[in-house]
Amino acid sequence: MRKKEVNAAILIIGNEILSGRTKDLNTSTISSWLNTIGIKVVESRTVLDIENQIISNLNELKSRYNYVFTSGGIGPTHDDITAISVSKTFGLNYEIHKEAFKILEKYYGKENFNDGRQRMVWMPSNANLILNPASGAPGFNVENVFCLPGVPSILESMLPGLQNKLVGGKPILNKTISLSTIESEIAKSLKEVQEKNRDVDIGSYPFFRKGKIGVSIVLRSEDQSRIDICSTQIINIAKEKKIEIVNRD
Amino acid sequence: MRKKEVNAAILIIGNEILSGRTKDLNTSTISSWLNTIGIKVVESRTVLDIENQIISNLNELKSRYNYVFTSGGIGPTHDDITAISVSKTFGLNYEIHKEAFKILEKYYGKENFNDGRQRMVWMPSNANLILNPASGAPGFNVENVFCLPGVPSILESMLPGLQNKLVGGKPILNKTISLSTIESEIAKSLKEVQEKNRDVDIGSYPFFRKGKIGVSIVLRSEDQSRIDICSTQIINIAKEKKIEIVNRD
Repeated sequence: MRKKEVNAAILIIGNEILSGRTKDLNTSTISSWLNTIGIKVVESRTVLDIENQIISNLNELKSRYNYVFTSGGIGPTHDDITAISVSKTFGLNYEIHKEAFKILEKYYGKENFNDGRQRMVWMPSNANLILNPASGAPGFNVENVFCLPGVPSILESMLPGLQNKLVGGKPILNKTISLSTIESEIAKSLKEVQEKNRDVDIGSYPFFRKGKIGVSIVLRSEDQSRIDICSTQIINIAKEKKIEIVNRD
Repeated sequence: MRKKEVNAAILIIGNEILSGRTKDLNTSTISSWLNTIGIKVVESRTVLDIENQIISNLNELKSRYNYVFTSGGIGPTHDDITAISVSKTFGLNYEIHKEAFKILEKYYGKENFNDGRQRMVWMPSNANLILNPASGAPGFNVENVFCLPGVPSILESMLPGLQNKLVGGKPILNKTISLSTIESEIAKSLKEVQEKNRDVDIGSYPFFRKGKIGVSIVLRSEDQSRIDICSTQIINIAKEKKIEIVNRD
């Protein structure tokens, strides 16, 4: 539908997500940020800390999409195996990255730069660093694969530094109209709006907020004028059906 | 490592997750619950509301794992396409499910059972229903694929009803030991513990709580005695290194 769409996949690496212990916040953070620079996330996968599983998924995703963003597995402990897995995926040596070594030696001080911390400078040969303003240890990038940490606040701090390394399309815009109704009441009309406006993604999401139920209609497109046209059509439907419009953002 | 492991994959269906608008809570809910009945989630994927993408992922996952659980896309609106996608995946007719029709007709009352609501009784031919104590509309199951809704509270209410339909292994037990330290301080010792205890999954997760930093060590196994042995080894390391043990659960 969209021309020259730039797409991406996310690969979340970590047992803690699939054990249920930790909720994944990073897919949402990465996706929202990529939208602003015109890159659309079309798939996300979560895998265990198992080298073969990481490598086979990386191989699939990197050949299928413009960009792949990984999260997790780049710390100092035995379960951090993203860097070696990426090295093997690309057939590169797994070795000390001199620039990363200098950055971390300076960050921690020579006397505190112990074995554990030095593990974080082992990377695929000639990887490009992704600087980490929050906690020193950099991420890295090989071809179209960008490796970020799992800790949400640290990952978030590193995204702005990626901007110059990515070539996106038009930013993906969105508008939400929240109606005081239930989905089945508007399903038919909404389907008609979608059929008339195939170039706008129209999503329908029931909500329960402060004891009230409703439906949020989310419109997404690269073209503000197309969103506005859909929005008007939906607002007219609400008026016809005497449905209260709770808010539009 | 584990014998007779019963595994599963999760397929989250919905544009709202990949646009970043909504954070996925369901992977965590489903995984945690499956652990209690001895089923281990080894992969999770999130896809768009696109029929081909849903079908190709379902085909891969259902043949690779013992069970597949989907979440999302079973409501009344145009973007709810899980049921037709599952029908096509299994080569089954997509048709009115008589039992589901009766349930919803009774739930809403004959006069309020409108077109939109009736869309929710269209399912793969002869699907088994998954009853919904929260809001009426059932999920369904075909072979090893179980389809649940996307709204987290409704999904959660439906899990207990699945128990008799699933055959799990031994429940997966876990123990967390939180230490007032940083990962690089214990990385080497922890690796040794992992190498001595290959049948226990040992994960290491830094945390920032109430202004304090620390590391949570998570031990996972079907065998409580194996967890206890690892736990003792880790506590001894903490004592040797004079690291405060913040808590053990």
